[in-house]
Amino acid sequence: SVGNQRPDLAGSTGATPSEEMNGTGNLMDFLDEPFPDVSTYEDFHTIDWLREKSRDTDRHRKITIKSKESYWELIKSLLDAWSGWVVMLLIGMLTGTLAGVIDLAVDWMTDLKEGVCLSAFYYSREQCCWTSNETTFDDRDKCPQWQKWAELMTGHSEGAGAYVLNYFLYVLWALLFSFLAVSLVRVFAPYACGSGIPEIKTILSGFIIRGYLGKWTLLIKTVTLVLAVSSGLSLGKEGPLVHVACCCGNLFCSLFSKYSKNEGKRREVLSAAAAAGVSVAFGAPIGGVLFSLEEVSYYFPLKTLWRSFFAALVAAFTLRAINPFGNSRLVLFYVEYHTPWYMAELVPFILLGVFGGLWGTLFIRGNIAWCRRRKTTLLGKYPVLEVIVITGITAVLAFPNPYTRRSTSELISELFNDCGALESSQLCDYVNNPNMSRPVDDIPDRPAGPGVYSALWQLALALIFKIVITIFTFGMKIPSGLFIPSMAVGAIAGRIVGIAVEQMAYHHHDWIIFKNWCRPGADCVTPGLYAMVGAAACLGGVTRMTVSLVVIMFELTGGLEYIVPLMAAAVTSKWVADAFGKEGIYESHIQLNGYPYLDVRDEFTHRTLATDVMRPRRSEPPLAVLTQDSTTVEDVETLIKDTDYNGFPVVVSRESERLIGFVQRRELTVAIKTARQKQDGVVSSSVVYFTEDNPQVAEACDPQPLKLRRILNLSPFTVTDHTPMETVVDIFRKLGLRQCLVTRSGRLLGIITKKDVLRHMAQMMNQDPESIMFN
Amino acid sequence: SVGNQRPDLAGSTGATPSEEMNGTGNLMDFLDEPFPDVSTYEDFHTIDWLREKSRDTDRHRKITIKSKESYWELIKSLLDAWSGWVVMLLIGMLTGTLAGVIDLAVDWMTDLKEGVCLSAFYYSREQCCWTSNETTFDDRDKCPQWQKWAELMTGHSEGAGAYVLNYFLYVLWALLFSFLAVSLVRVFAPYACGSGIPEIKTILSGFIIRGYLGKWTLLIKTVTLVLAVSSGLSLGKEGPLVHVACCCGNLFCSLFSKYSKNEGKRREVLSAAAAAGVSVAFGAPIGGVLFSLEEVSYYFPLKTLWRSFFAALVAAFTLRAINPFGNSRLVLFYVEYHTPWYMAELVPFILLGVFGGLWGTLFIRGNIAWCRRRKTTLLGKYPVLEVIVITGITAVLAFPNPYTRRSTSELISELFNDCGALESSQLCDYVNNPNMSRPVDDIPDRPAGPGVYSALWQLALALIFKIVITIFTFGMKIPSGLFIPSMAVGAIAGRIVGIAVEQMAYHHHDWIIFKNWCRPGADCVTPGLYAMVGAAACLGGVTRMTVSLVVIMFELTGGLEYIVPLMAAAVTSKWVADAFGKEGIYESHIQLNGYPYLDVRDEFTHRTLATDVMRPRRSEPPLAVLTQDSTTVEDVETLIKDTDYNGFPVVVSRESERLIGFVQRRELTVAIKTARQKQDGVVSSSVVYFTEDNPQVAEACDPQPLKLRRILNLSPFTVTDHTPMETVVDIFRKLGLRQCLVTRSGRLLGIITKKDVLRHMAQMMNQDPESIMFN
Repeated sequence: SVGNQRPDLAGSTGATPSEEMNGTGNLMDFLDEPFPDVSTYEDFHTIDWLREKSRDTDRHRKITIKSKESYWELIKSLLDAWSGWVVMLLIGMLTGTLAGVIDLAVDWMTDLKEGVCLSAFYYSREQCCWTSNETTFDDRDKCPQWQKWAELMTGHSEGAGAYVLNYFLYVLWALLFSFLAVSLVRVFAPYACGSGIPEIKTILSGFIIRGYLGKWTLLIKTVTLVLAVSSGLSLGKEGPLVHVACCCGNLFCSLFSKYSKNEGKRREVLSAAAAAGVSVAFGAPIGGVLFSLEEVSYYFPLKTLWRSFFAALVAAFTLRAINPFGNSRLVLFYVEYHTPWYMAELVPFILLGVFGGLWGTLFIRGNIAWCRRRKTTLLGKYPVLEVIVITGITAVLAFPNPYTRRSTSELISELFNDCGALESSQLCDYVNNPNMSRPVDDIPDRPAGPGVYSALWQLALALIFKIVITIFTFGMKIPSGLFIPSMAVGAIAGRIVGIAVEQMAYHHHDWIIFKNWCRPGADCVTPGLYAMVGAAACLGGVTRMTVSLVVIMFELTGGLEYIVPLMAAAVTSKWVADAFGKEGIYESHIQLNGYPYLDVRDEFTHRTLATDVMRPRRSEPPLAVLTQDSTTVEDVETLIKDTDYNGFPVVVSRESERLIGFVQRRELTVAIKTARQKQDGVVSSSVVYFTEDNPQVAEACDPQPLKLRRILNLSPFTVTDHTPMETVVDIFRKLGLRQCLVTRSGRLLGIITKKDVLRHMAQMMNQDPESIMFN
Repeated sequence: SVGNQRPDLAGSTGATPSEEMNGTGNLMDFLDEPFPDVSTYEDFHTIDWLREKSRDTDRHRKITIKSKESYWELIKSLLDAWSGWVVMLLIGMLTGTLAGVIDLAVDWMTDLKEGVCLSAFYYSREQCCWTSNETTFDDRDKCPQWQKWAELMTGHSEGAGAYVLNYFLYVLWALLFSFLAVSLVRVFAPYACGSGIPEIKTILSGFIIRGYLGKWTLLIKTVTLVLAVSSGLSLGKEGPLVHVACCCGNLFCSLFSKYSKNEGKRREVLSAAAAAGVSVAFGAPIGGVLFSLEEVSYYFPLKTLWRSFFAALVAAFTLRAINPFGNSRLVLFYVEYHTPWYMAELVPFILLGVFGGLWGTLFIRGNIAWCRRRKTTLLGKYPVLEVIVITGITAVLAFPNPYTRRSTSELISELFNDCGALESSQLCDYVNNPNMSRPVDDIPDRPAGPGVYSALWQLALALIFKIVITIFTFGMKIPSGLFIPSMAVGAIAGRIVGIAVEQMAYHHHDWIIFKNWCRPGADCVTPGLYAMVGAAACLGGVTRMTVSLVVIMFELTGGLEYIVPLMAAAVTSKWVADAFGKEGIYESHIQLNGYPYLDVRDEFTHRTLATDVMRPRRSEPPLAVLTQDSTTVEDVETLIKDTDYNGFPVVVSRESERLIGFVQRRELTVAIKTARQKQDGVVSSSVVYFTEDNPQVAEACDPQPLKLRRILNLSPFTVTDHTPMETVVDIFRKLGLRQCLVTRSGRLLGIITKKDVLRHMAQMMNQDPESIMFN
């Protein structure tokens, strides 16, 4: 028995570790993989981080030992060491290329809804007009090569008929694009829908969803993303780009067994890929790395920081080489402001933060309620119809308003921009003072012209429209990101506030608050900055990003000047939104879908103990255990058949209940199956034993026993029944455990799985514990 | 006995958690603090992160419950929730202010070595000349108000006599400053010496060094830092500024019991303070946060990321409000380049990376060898003399060379700068082509003039001088950072390479490598960029920073353009340096000083088991344990007297060795002392028992037993003897344990402390295990 072995063990502990390694090699048997296929996990199961890590160390150790044998092995070991960087390079290049292609395609197809380029049909309007020789600078928005559909078909570009025809074709194209998108998703890759970030968060936390990052998902998501964005729906491409980047990461993982065969290492690559995705979405590599660190990644070793940064940079530079925006700029919304901000402006900035927080709360509640309705009612049965109807409503309402007709990113870009002297936008229709000299960089405050007032009305209508339609759009069965719509809501609100403050400052420059910093003729309020602050506040309210949000915005402007306004708005927005509910949109969707996600940021502060959470509970049958030397093969097979546990604890005997180890269900099944096929004499009545030496009983009598020590994990994780759940939750999070055994003075009392922990946490927070998916 | 209690326990586990909380309140007793002062740790001991965390949750829970009682308690709970932000604000403001004051004082005192301002003695040379009305732009380096010492004392500003007198006074001032610095450190605050980063890393990993972050250290380090930098020694202020910022953090922690009474929470604040320190050192807030994350912090919860960012920003803005550089710039070395770089230039950039890696290796090996000599020989006995001698040598050798005479940061600034049309530096003495028009922004390549050639020689001499003297300077008993000297070495090397490439490109523009991008008359090589790349490479080689280094450099230039050269150099430098030894300068100093630091990045890949590491070993006496109900007070007192362990495991009985819990030495001592004073009937022969109910033996007979269950930790951390050490190391790192008990089937076999883990790791890496300090 185990007690008798102690003197031998004590004898061997005196030896130095190196002697130990040769002498007690059989102690390590459990580290070796007994069968080739037991290392994988089943679909919708949780991985064991500690086990994956230990398998990788093992692999690494073998390579190091081999590398001393020959030059060829040395080269192989060097290639293995470099494979991480190679994967990052490939991910960066492919992600950058795909982002560039998506940008170009979206540009062209968005314009296709309104018209076509006669000189080359594959040119977008901007490319069409810039390549034309006949375009003058003043006339750069109209060029003869670019014709609207009505003009092309009827010859008339003006009039009610042309307007109706254009309107009709705009809606038709939108419906066609969205129908194609939803059909492709339905038929080829159901996982390609949505933003993908909630699922990627869950996968990175150690969950298996087969096919979610597969080749088909990559292909279909890329194509349908173009279609969905072009259809003019209120959605963006940023979230889906993260999903696309992770698919690229998964694709390149399969090139190297180091990553494809180890779920832990694979997740390191996926973390970096997520950074590359955000990097190309905004052209903000540092922001991308921080987004991956703050929002997406679960287990982020510092080694990954450097690799993520590399992948993000390669992706950004690849995108710049493709140059889809035609301006050699890396960033999506390049802005440059020329005036500083003043302390008094913090008041409107903080108000925008409050608005952002309220919008975040409204959006999350509304969207979750709608998605729950979709899950539970008939609505969910007709995803194609839903997309068609929403697209129809969006297109019909969007066309009449110039601010909703164009693509959302163009709208944001215009709202962010400062009114320079050369700006032709309606938003810059100020009354000019002919006596004043006009340097390009510095335009003094002026009274608003009629264009600005009509723009304000149109913007207000666009704001209401965007707020309502986005709630219904996010979560449909097409790729849909919410960064861009959220930013648009904030940018519209911000610009309106900005113009209001600007006009107030111009007309009332003798008020105390304006007196000190806003003399007449000075340029003191930048409405574009307000739009930017509003965008940050709304995005922050929805996603609860903090540092990464500010850094992304900082990379857009490139100056530290405006960090304080952005921070003030982001902090306010987060606080306001947190007051109504701690969860951001991604966490809410994770919860809605019941993914087993253990949030690193949730503080578990209840005074429960491990004994309150462990199974079996009083009313339940006792824990299914194996004994070390008295279970027969038949008993084991019955146990496997009757239960669906992932593994079974092994105890000395049913009486003493002293814990020896833990055996995985999968490995047990394979071991018994193999033994029955290959090993003579193993029958149903054979005794299965897990001790190191043959037990006394087995030596004398038939049938031949089955020795399974090599599949026994001799170091199962245990806590005592008195351990506070707070500590247990911490252990599950930090060590990435799958299950943990509960003991008291060495006796096995029960088991806690990740699912039990999640269910208990949900229970303590008064949520529905039954919604958690089986792990 | 414990076995009998099981049915009761099983009975209670069926209840819901909320019933449980009322019903079995006595199970939780161990969470309460029985005595006010046992929560603190002794000097040079390791903290238990899990325990600190659980104490904070407890405190938070109490406040939440209380806050529902009255409005006053609600306000108090809100203040408590906000105290973290208040501390960050205060740290940012104080750090920024101190950094500004240090900058101003260093400026003034550095110039004082050469001369004085007649209009106001407290003006530095630059302030003196800029405030003067008589200075013209061309003559801005000479102004009548600023007089060198010789001119002031003898009236002659030229000639050998004046030179000798200036030389003599320069050396004298340097000696005076450094003597003052070392004396202040010796007398008032011995902990103020060095850079402080190795110690802060150790403290943040959970070690206690009393007084290291105290008020005296803060005051003396600030003053002596000014003196040390002004004395012209080859050292910088960046590392010590991190120490100063952490002292500020510690100072403000004492305002709130939330932070002052919890060593874990305190370390969260210190992490953020470190970010604020780097933020003001370079004017790079994002770089500061990443530096804290990548290099300094051990336990970095995401909540801290946002607070660190806030502290770093407040510090940066406070510094800018003080405006010590007089240019409204946040960054230390503001540069702006106007030309792009070309692919072929990657070759010299990578060569600079190799140089940086070699310099890093040379510096670390040389400096560690010298520091070890200082520790072991007579040298260490005369720290004042050592500082005086090194200062003397530095001053004597530095004065004749204009590039070493000035302060190192001015030198770096000049080397980074591109030669504009208005530049008066010797390094910009190119032969002008009078036929060429000269726009300010774009100067074509030109042949070097005699000034450049003499500058090259002086730079080469300065390079050798800096390399040698820095090795001996870092580690002396004065505040000394190595960012600036390392960057200076790299910047000099880089500028030399840059000028060489530039001249080669000018004279041989028909060579194949230059043909494509460097036509005559074009501006194709920027020597300043080479200096910057060299500085990054050398700093990377010494510290092994990666992402934070690139981000800091990116914040200096403000453009993504030059990230690829910087990354190429940083990666090369790290790889080259890693090939010679994995440890950066901070890790090497941690090891030299034997601090118990468990590096997060070291991968432990050896195949040893917990049984190889645990104590007692075979030759040692058995583990000192207490039994649950058969030890007397006298036995316990003898055990405490005879051993110096931090705590003792409690077992059911010496025969069964089944583990019940763990009791801290400190709490045991206090409990017995208190019981002897207050509780009647507790004498030496009283039985100490740890069970829930009075044991049968105690009920019948005198003397009265001592019940100590409330100090028993019922959830000690255990692993089995078969657990791979790799997993044990991971558990110690991630959960921040102090010790871990080793069991086999519920029987206690031994104990593993953090010190055992560190000693084992050192042993496996063939290092001297005896150098580790007692934890």
